[in-house]
Amino acid sequence: MHTVNVHLQHRPCPITIRRGGISTFAETCKQYGDYGYWIIITQPNLADRYGNILLQSMRNAGLHTDLITIPAGETAKSIQQVETLYSRLVSLQCDRSTMLIALGGGVVGDVAGFLAATYMRGIQYIQFPTTLLSMIDSAIGGKTGVNLPEGKNLVGAIYQPNEVVIDPDLLTTLPMREKVSGFAEMMKYGLIQDRKFFYKISGQSFTDFIEDDALFEESIIRSCEIKADIVSVDEFEKGLRKILNFGHTVGHALEILSGMDVLRHGEAVAFGMLCGGYISFKRGLLSKKEWQEIESAIRELPLPKIHIPKSEDILKMIRHDKKTYKRKRNFILLHGIGNAVVDDKVSDQEIIDSLEVL
Amino acid sequence: MHTVNVHLQHRPCPITIRRGGISTFAETCKQYGDYGYWIIITQPNLADRYGNILLQSMRNAGLHTDLITIPAGETAKSIQQVETLYSRLVSLQCDRSTMLIALGGGVVGDVAGFLAATYMRGIQYIQFPTTLLSMIDSAIGGKTGVNLPEGKNLVGAIYQPNEVVIDPDLLTTLPMREKVSGFAEMMKYGLIQDRKFFYKISGQSFTDFIEDDALFEESIIRSCEIKADIVSVDEFEKGLRKILNFGHTVGHALEILSGMDVLRHGEAVAFGMLCGGYISFKRGLLSKKEWQEIESAIRELPLPKIHIPKSEDILKMIRHDKKTYKRKRNFILLHGIGNAVVDDKVSDQEIIDSLEVL
Repeated sequence: MHTVNVHLQHRPCPITIRRGGISTFAETCKQYGDYGYWIIITQPNLADRYGNILLQSMRNAGLHTDLITIPAGETAKSIQQVETLYSRLVSLQCDRSTMLIALGGGVVGDVAGFLAATYMRGIQYIQFPTTLLSMIDSAIGGKTGVNLPEGKNLVGAIYQPNEVVIDPDLLTTLPMREKVSGFAEMMKYGLIQDRKFFYKISGQSFTDFIEDDALFEESIIRSCEIKADIVSVDEFEKGLRKILNFGHTVGHALEILSGMDVLRHGEAVAFGMLCGGYISFKRGLLSKKEWQEIESAIRELPLPKIHIPKSEDILKMIRHDKKTYKRKRNFILLHGIGNAVVDDKVSDQEIIDSLEVL
Repeated sequence: MHTVNVHLQHRPCPITIRRGGISTFAETCKQYGDYGYWIIITQPNLADRYGNILLQSMRNAGLHTDLITIPAGETAKSIQQVETLYSRLVSLQCDRSTMLIALGGGVVGDVAGFLAATYMRGIQYIQFPTTLLSMIDSAIGGKTGVNLPEGKNLVGAIYQPNEVVIDPDLLTTLPMREKVSGFAEMMKYGLIQDRKFFYKISGQSFTDFIEDDALFEESIIRSCEIKADIVSVDEFEKGLRKILNFGHTVGHALEILSGMDVLRHGEAVAFGMLCGGYISFKRGLLSKKEWQEIESAIRELPLPKIHIPKSEDILKMIRHDKKTYKRKRNFILLHGIGNAVVDDKVSDQEIIDSLEVL
């Protein structure tokens, strides 16, 4: 077992990485002691695979537990879905002694986290991510969110879980596209913060990487450390935390314009990092060699073919982005591999030009 | 001008009490410096009376400002209303540099505060209360909330404003029922925390009290101090802050069962305090003399006649209350005037018996 701590202002939030963590989870829960009621929030397919087993083991351990499912896919991140869940919690007589368990990927974590942040003005929750991307990224740092018709995650809260429980064994059955999606965010950590880590994980083919169990687990831990360190410094995204958005400005736009659930989040970020890398290169912030290394590492991934949306649609989408401040974009660029910088002067034309590399 | 500070964990939240505060508000805003956009959230009648003047004075001071209204009344505290407001903020291109100003009573403060807590994962806001009750209670302490069909404030967040601006001059046009409603919460502060204050404000007729400008303003300040001190000790209602719920368990039930907007919040709390006082007396926690003092102080108020709902409806409503923890009620009793205690063993029968005093 390995523990990485996010140092929050009032308390640490432990990220516990433990193979077989799902089978020992009921014991983990008992350490929390004083909870009246446990609610697992998950999706139907995950309930079949893990949720019902977890439910049974928690009940066997004497914990008052129930399970609620939300539909699969990004459409579940709606205000209507959250409203349905509020009513469900009321009908189950959930009160402030209820602990939610977000068992799933980013969608489940975002919705369950927002529910925890706002039900009865805040109840507690544990993140139990089941995808690579959620293990190393979305489950860490307390960002929760739901979508509006106008854009992704426009509603939400920064509300920290009590703990993040990572069981790498759950990844064995993860579809390849989900692995690629998570790997793209791993690569992002290297690009923005840890040059050595970038070269380490992009130093062999992606297929070799994911089959190297030891390297894979070590990379999960390193990714959690990088994210945890950044959140520890800047929980509320006033400064440093913004660099985690590298690849996300164009990435988010592509993700939405492609239609919900067509691109995986990490796939969209991979494309976004190509644009961000290219702009950095054109600005002279990345050497040609570095840009080529980034480009080939991303192109080596088995990414889907995408239909590039019209430039004006991408720009319009970016204008509604949360990263905009005083109507200026906060765009993340790379000043060398391993060193991200925030720039609010990236022009529309630079973005349009960068779309050529997709 | 008088300032009372709520000592939050990261920063103080000043409560500024200043006659004529509305006419100097644009100057107050300029002290905040770096805000890109100011949005006043208010109700149509308040826009006519204060909002449009404020809007104009802020624009004259060079501040980029707009005004949004929500419908009057408790029905505005719905998820649907909040959703409409999210879209409105997006269409106005509000980003994280936007500051909301909640100009109104409890409904406006609760909705605008929740909007601030959840739009783009949190933007900043100022509480500018216009009723006595919101000045001394709901605008202080960061509680925000919206209703579900199942109960009041079942959704919300504890999210602190940057400042609370109180202009007692706004109270001159406040309807009498609103004054009574606010006065009941003032009386609550005395009953739970400050014996001398209770006797001071209940030492003359209510009519004399509200016509004594100096005493009235002094009592506003004292109420703000008591609330601020309690929130400073226990921002997240883990312990001490619960005592602010004195009169609120039965009070909330009466408020909802009477039909939205039939009883004022403080009126319902006044009735709830009769029940809480009576149970405390029956338990031997209050002397007969103290109970009679409380009863006569409350009965002296010009409260509306109420139709008492059926006992089983009241009990059912209380079961869904946020103050329930592990399916136990946290009921606030008085152990002598000025000394509140939390009790989780008040029985259904004690509550039913107490309804007789209404």
